[in-house]
Amino acid sequence: MSAARADPSLPIGVFDSGVGGLTVLRAIRAALPHESTVYLGDTARVPYGTKSRDSVLRYSLQASDQLVRRGIKLLVVACNTASALSLPELRAHLKPLPVIGVVEPGAEAAVAASAAQRHLVLATEATVAQRAYTRAIRSLAPRAEIEELACSLFVALAEEGWTEGAVAAAAAHAYLGAIAERPARERFDSVILGCTHFPLLADPIRAELGPAPSIVDSATATASGVAALLARDALAARTRARGDLRLLVTDGAARFARLGSRFLGEPFAAADVEVVDL
Amino acid sequence: MSAARADPSLPIGVFDSGVGGLTVLRAIRAALPHESTVYLGDTARVPYGTKSRDSVLRYSLQASDQLVRRGIKLLVVACNTASALSLPELRAHLKPLPVIGVVEPGAEAAVAASAAQRHLVLATEATVAQRAYTRAIRSLAPRAEIEELACSLFVALAEEGWTEGAVAAAAAHAYLGAIAERPARERFDSVILGCTHFPLLADPIRAELGPAPSIVDSATATASGVAALLARDALAARTRARGDLRLLVTDGAARFARLGSRFLGEPFAAADVEVVDL
Repeated sequence: MSAARADPSLPIGVFDSGVGGLTVLRAIRAALPHESTVYLGDTARVPYGTKSRDSVLRYSLQASDQLVRRGIKLLVVACNTASALSLPELRAHLKPLPVIGVVEPGAEAAVAASAAQRHLVLATEATVAQRAYTRAIRSLAPRAEIEELACSLFVALAEEGWTEGAVAAAAAHAYLGAIAERPARERFDSVILGCTHFPLLADPIRAELGPAPSIVDSATATASGVAALLARDALAARTRARGDLRLLVTDGAARFARLGSRFLGEPFAAADVEVVDL
Repeated sequence: MSAARADPSLPIGVFDSGVGGLTVLRAIRAALPHESTVYLGDTARVPYGTKSRDSVLRYSLQASDQLVRRGIKLLVVACNTASALSLPELRAHLKPLPVIGVVEPGAEAAVAASAAQRHLVLATEATVAQRAYTRAIRSLAPRAEIEELACSLFVALAEEGWTEGAVAAAAAHAYLGAIAERPARERFDSVILGCTHFPLLADPIRAELGPAPSIVDSATATASGVAALLARDALAARTRARGDLRLLVTDGAARFARLGSRFLGEPFAAADVEVVDL
């Protein structure tokens, strides 16, 4: 594993349960254009959120082993469920390879951006049940006020491509309307998009909540964390060329390409996606 | 297997990938209140729709073997994907146990209810891709006009419990508004709810399409098919007591109970749900 650590020309590995982690990959490629990346979406077993802890841990180890075998210098766990449930085990298993999840960077960015430390976490039902963002924020700001809200329909809206228009607006209002109408002293000054799908819904969320709260997107925060980690460990790519991109899935390359181009913000075809068995 | 066929006191087995098949179970219990039933939701591996044909076939065989081991007199495959992909193999494997899917009964009911044989099939992306309803309708009405439309967000709406109100209405309008505005000669006179989740959305669908088309719900059609099959094979329960109900899942009993009560139309608790390993 120390070989993996030594070579800055190796790609960054990014692992998610499906297509959502492509928003994290997009943020990494935007922040670090010279880095090569290899993405693995475990589309055969998505969603992780409803699986048991043991299953999520087993899948996470299999996925990261697949990426490590291909040679990576750093692993990004771009799945909120896997970040919440398996990060310590992954770090121990892959040592000394650096491993970064999406929850801690999101929490750090929110705490840094918030004056009042009043945080609203929007996430899936499974992430909310784990309270991982609450724990991560409290470890940095022990007196923070935190509310976590499951907004499951946002996942389906992002996958359907309905990220603006009447249905997205109605869903944002149904989830957030009552929160937006609270008296000023009960309002949040920080909103964390705690699901990799939700950056696609940032506009209707912002329209419902108004301009006051800062919206923290775990994808962008994680990309900043990756940049800091590469700098700290002298692992940044030493090239001026645009980094390569390799895409792996465990099932359904055609659907992944159709949905994924929107999440990645770059078009790609099913032929660009390799199907692997874990 | 012939023992299973012989005993009318055995329960009806119902198998689905998750919670949606509970609408089929509900229709069976409404039509045949004296029949005992045992339901298995493969919640650990839901959704089947994005899995490969081989995986769906393997899961279907495992699930039906589990039900057969417990003793059933008839198997209902209450999952559109499994019905479309694995019915012939299941029938051969379980012979002489009668096996009934949801696609054929839905298609038969639609053809019987339609004068113009102009059918609109609303289903998930995966079911639409399989064109199973189109094949089943054409085998009965070769000159039928059939259009299949993926309405994936309806699944998320049913699971979120948003089966009425602004979001459901906006989604129904987004999917069906253009169809509702077509000139009279291009309209459908039959709408098939080809996903087990969709009966919960019947009201907003009806509100968007108006009173003209007959709405055929595969769940109700399948229950009628089950009744006919029990009568044909002299397998109907010989009791006046209310039939028993047993619920099995492969993961997440708490979530299954929370969502499932709405689908089944009867409250039940996580403690009523047995978790099994396939």
